[in-house]
Amino acid sequence: MSYEFVKGESEITELCKGKPVYLLVIGNTRTAEVPGITVAGANPELIKYTPPADAELLYHGRCLSIDTVPATPDGKPTPALISYTALRLTAIPFFIVNSGLMVEPKIPFVELNAPVGENIAERRAMDAEKVREVIERAKILGRKMSKLADVLIVGESIPAGTTTAAAVLKALGFEPAVSSSMPENPLDLKKQVVEMAVRRVESNDPIEVLAAVGDPVMLGVIGLALGSEKPVVFAGGTQMVAIANLVARMGEVDAVIATTKYVASDPNADLSLSPFPVVAADPMLGKSKYKGLRAYEEGFVKEGVGAGGLTLMAYVRGLEPEKFLEEIEKDYANIVS
Amino acid sequence: MSYEFVKGESEITELCKGKPVYLLVIGNTRTAEVPGITVAGANPELIKYTPPADAELLYHGRCLSIDTVPATPDGKPTPALISYTALRLTAIPFFIVNSGLMVEPKIPFVELNAPVGENIAERRAMDAEKVREVIERAKILGRKMSKLADVLIVGESIPAGTTTAAAVLKALGFEPAVSSSMPENPLDLKKQVVEMAVRRVESNDPIEVLAAVGDPVMLGVIGLALGSEKPVVFAGGTQMVAIANLVARMGEVDAVIATTKYVASDPNADLSLSPFPVVAADPMLGKSKYKGLRAYEEGFVKEGVGAGGLTLMAYVRGLEPEKFLEEIEKDYANIVS
Repeated sequence: MSYEFVKGESEITELCKGKPVYLLVIGNTRTAEVPGITVAGANPELIKYTPPADAELLYHGRCLSIDTVPATPDGKPTPALISYTALRLTAIPFFIVNSGLMVEPKIPFVELNAPVGENIAERRAMDAEKVREVIERAKILGRKMSKLADVLIVGESIPAGTTTAAAVLKALGFEPAVSSSMPENPLDLKKQVVEMAVRRVESNDPIEVLAAVGDPVMLGVIGLALGSEKPVVFAGGTQMVAIANLVARMGEVDAVIATTKYVASDPNADLSLSPFPVVAADPMLGKSKYKGLRAYEEGFVKEGVGAGGLTLMAYVRGLEPEKFLEEIEKDYANIVS
Repeated sequence: MSYEFVKGESEITELCKGKPVYLLVIGNTRTAEVPGITVAGANPELIKYTPPADAELLYHGRCLSIDTVPATPDGKPTPALISYTALRLTAIPFFIVNSGLMVEPKIPFVELNAPVGENIAERRAMDAEKVREVIERAKILGRKMSKLADVLIVGESIPAGTTTAAAVLKALGFEPAVSSSMPENPLDLKKQVVEMAVRRVESNDPIEVLAAVGDPVMLGVIGLALGSEKPVVFAGGTQMVAIANLVARMGEVDAVIATTKYVASDPNADLSLSPFPVVAADPMLGKSKYKGLRAYEEGFVKEGVGAGGLTLMAYVRGLEPEKFLEEIEKDYANIVS
């Protein structure tokens, strides 16, 4: 099965055969500066370049802001590779949304003037007034974009995003298990950060939760979804579960979460907390001849840059999984090797 | 006749009944700092806010960066008012493209990282390498946007843009008469600036012409047009004539220039220099009960922010001219009075 619903069901996957548009929302939180919390970058200095480099990869098949593609310290490549192949094969139009970046990408992007998120281990994430403002701007963008498309697909790239997501879920009253880009998920460290962060939350009002323990990418994704006049695909794992819970409290949105099989089969990724149906797609990387890609099946990286949702797009639009893997491997060979 | 071709003919107006997208490209050139060269702002300090304020007006029906709407020193309002009404009535999706602004608008916008243009009376306008880079970025944007639409409509807002346009035309070997936002067109002053500027042009290569005497908005518009996989409507007057001549030298584009009747009937606006067909639409402002709007018929302001092209959109999509004027007046009363 190349993709299947792991929670509920939705017709949105059918709509995706029409004319979707993909919006990749990227930003940074200083929470990524907590030593050991993320591997979304080969070293701490490079982590801040991961989101712009992911975006550049989608447009150019190579990064402009750094010399190689974003990778974990031991060389496992960014999921942007999967997204790149899927976008190349489906020709789905896509746009980059800067929602709190430290470093601007060297490609055209939409500017929401969002703040960089603070380290939630140490202080509140963002100013509440600014949170409201950025969401309003993203709503405008979502409304305009949705007029041009049948479905809005929204992805993310933000190092340490699974930690802010866990904090949001906890602030909303859940007891989240949380996914990670590492198979040895640094759960104790994350739990500690989340515990410290959540103490600063004063109510379960979505704006307060975001201001206290969220990250700026959440603002962009939430605004896009609330502004959209068409159904929305949240392309991502537990980060999108956190975002979807906020969205469900803030408005009426017809949505689905689309992620990878690797997140769906992670016992620490509780997709059942999603208020919307969840569909998981299998990019077949376990069958790859490349070790860097097989690592995904072994629990590394797993998701990001909309990889799961865009894999789904490739499949609903008729691509055979074996062919898709072949094309991913071709791009991997060109781009990484 | 609510609109008519004043040069050639094109089927593109028919296509506009389908699904167009409007891109407003905004930026600044320090050429606007030449005293007396432009009235696109109530005073010299405000001129730099005109493009972002125009953009804000389109989204919100009011400006956020300044307290009132952009106007000439004696109070004639920005053509963004006409564009606002047309976009409101047609519900055409639109996006703002920052191509060299001094001040960012307080709304979502696409960032091309273009430089502010230098004062062409004093020095070369932009670095040639940067010119190439920005055009490449805009091409990417144009390609993506065109996948979502049947037609790309591209407008501009840049104070002193008619002066840089005259310099470009002259550098390309034309002897341009040049339109202006003033009926007492400061022709001698403009001619002087153009003469000084053109001396710095080393060849008639488009990149060299842009680098020597162009402005950054030209880069955005040119890139969008060259990148587009669909027909293009250049929404503007003599500025678009200059841009169209550069585009025609740089690639194959199916395009038309759409402007207002006020530019078409200006003896100083030589639309015959367009390499593409030219259509002129009449927003009927001469019949307005408001003096500020009637001023357009008397030769003030005349065009900008895509007013002519968007008036055309309203008409090809079936709006009656009398009804359109009524709606412009309604917005004028709400926004300006």
